[in-house]
Amino acid sequence: MQDLIAVVDLGASKILNGIATAQGEILVKEKFPTNPENGPADIIDRIADSIRKLSSWCGDYESQIVRVVAATPGPLSYPEGVVVDSPNLAWARVPFKDELSKRLVKPVIVEKDTNLAALGEYYFGRQGQPRSLLYITVSTGIGGGIILDGRIWRGHKGGAGEIGHMVVEPQGRACNCGRRGCLEALASGAAIRHQVSELRQQGKGIGIVALGNAKKDIGAEEVGEAARRGDAEALTLVSRVVEYLGRAVANLVNIFNPEIVVLGGGVALGWQDLILERLNLDVKKEVFAINTQDLKIEITSLGEDIVLYGGIAAALQKSGI
Amino acid sequence: MQDLIAVVDLGASKILNGIATAQGEILVKEKFPTNPENGPADIIDRIADSIRKLSSWCGDYESQIVRVVAATPGPLSYPEGVVVDSPNLAWARVPFKDELSKRLVKPVIVEKDTNLAALGEYYFGRQGQPRSLLYITVSTGIGGGIILDGRIWRGHKGGAGEIGHMVVEPQGRACNCGRRGCLEALASGAAIRHQVSELRQQGKGIGIVALGNAKKDIGAEEVGEAARRGDAEALTLVSRVVEYLGRAVANLVNIFNPEIVVLGGGVALGWQDLILERLNLDVKKEVFAINTQDLKIEITSLGEDIVLYGGIAAALQKSGI
Repeated sequence: MQDLIAVVDLGASKILNGIATAQGEILVKEKFPTNPENGPADIIDRIADSIRKLSSWCGDYESQIVRVVAATPGPLSYPEGVVVDSPNLAWARVPFKDELSKRLVKPVIVEKDTNLAALGEYYFGRQGQPRSLLYITVSTGIGGGIILDGRIWRGHKGGAGEIGHMVVEPQGRACNCGRRGCLEALASGAAIRHQVSELRQQGKGIGIVALGNAKKDIGAEEVGEAARRGDAEALTLVSRVVEYLGRAVANLVNIFNPEIVVLGGGVALGWQDLILERLNLDVKKEVFAINTQDLKIEITSLGEDIVLYGGIAAALQKSGI
Repeated sequence: MQDLIAVVDLGASKILNGIATAQGEILVKEKFPTNPENGPADIIDRIADSIRKLSSWCGDYESQIVRVVAATPGPLSYPEGVVVDSPNLAWARVPFKDELSKRLVKPVIVEKDTNLAALGEYYFGRQGQPRSLLYITVSTGIGGGIILDGRIWRGHKGGAGEIGHMVVEPQGRACNCGRRGCLEALASGAAIRHQVSELRQQGKGIGIVALGNAKKDIGAEEVGEAARRGDAEALTLVSRVVEYLGRAVANLVNIFNPEIVVLGGGVALGWQDLILERLNLDVKKEVFAINTQDLKIEITSLGEDIVLYGGIAAALQKSGI
């Protein structure tokens, strides 16, 4: 019987669980809505139930699941695994690691989702090269994972990588984190939805709204599709998002001089054709010449599973299996 | 005869050279203006002459100077030691390491000034604790040095740490680097001089100008003194500088979750009483709670010699003497 790894990707809007082999093959996975309004206990219960169910589909839970790795949104204290004051989950101080371990009756490694995504990209997307990699997720929220010399940089208490809370427009919209004009408040999936809803309130955005099939919550998907059809309001919205992303990435490139910046998350994956070329141009124009040497800015090829791959990488690192 | 270390701190406005023992005692030093308008050859000649002269005052140049460590403004390619496109020296591509080695007939270690300052603070200011330290110089320009797990983070080509070129006010003043609203363009010594000169052109800033004793180039010193005397325009100017510094430091703290942020450079040293308390308040209010745990924001105690101390630290690291 082979050893298996259970991985959990707890996001603000959806949870993705999977069971993988030590070779990095994901055998089975399941996605379901987070419903953060139900509170932490319900969410952790449902995660544990899902892991047990998925495990039973491909092996024996007790004997074959040798590692459980779970990802949560930040900020997350490391190594304690306490979600400290997550603006997107609206969790104040939840001892996620302890609670999940209790329910699963197995030790759990808990890492911030963006750290695991960066690790997944590093191991499975890039085979351990290049050695310095910044990962940025543009999803409901915006976060980052930092790989330096092949290792996650977590900072003193695990709070590093909060690049979604870099101010890119000081007079911009208030952010959930308490600051104003953070990248996340202007360029995340939630920010895009907010901008569409503002357009609608003004009786604008017809070309975007028309693609929403009477959906209440119109966001990046419809904006992207409208932009591809040449809708001016959608193009402006996309353009503004790229401008903010470019400003933040340029700041980061001047700070870290990384070899590669990889973007992932629903918005980046869905808008790849709309943003990647201009993002490269903007950033390379903005930063010092020394920092553009060999610099790559790409979208992950691991898609939605990037955090699961990071979980597998973390399990392999930890266990030496 | 004891081994000695020669250290060079090449800045945009002044050059500071010193000779030190392997125990970190600076025996003799000399400061003279850079006069960047004379071009690189003249500057490198004068640095070499000064090092030979200083050495002769405390020993034998040929036999006792076992290491030469020189700091330059960034961007500097590492380990080649080529100053790539320094906005403040107006050097395009100067092979400083090779040129200085040739003139001194000794191998020279060249590092970016802010990297050495960070290393100096880490070894001589903090005795190797804490392990993660961000150093920010607020001088003619603004730059940074990053110590992670006790080591300088230089990035892929040596271009890391350019935190002066983080955009903090997108509609702000054009920066020498080509971007707009960089921290350096708004909060550096040069930016402060520029703001005073703008006030003068508008017939304002009387309280600041009065302290300049008919000097043409009135800057941070006079602004600081006027602010201490309660001059409203000076207080506004100081307040704006602290606001920009606070925004940038908060961004960095959310990115790195460092244990300590240390400020140095003429403006930070001269304005310590005016800025340190508010900077601490601003940053700790702005960042995630997890990133404020144990966080210290301080001014270096190594004063103007911080880069020399960094040079000594680098020499000791390299030689094991």
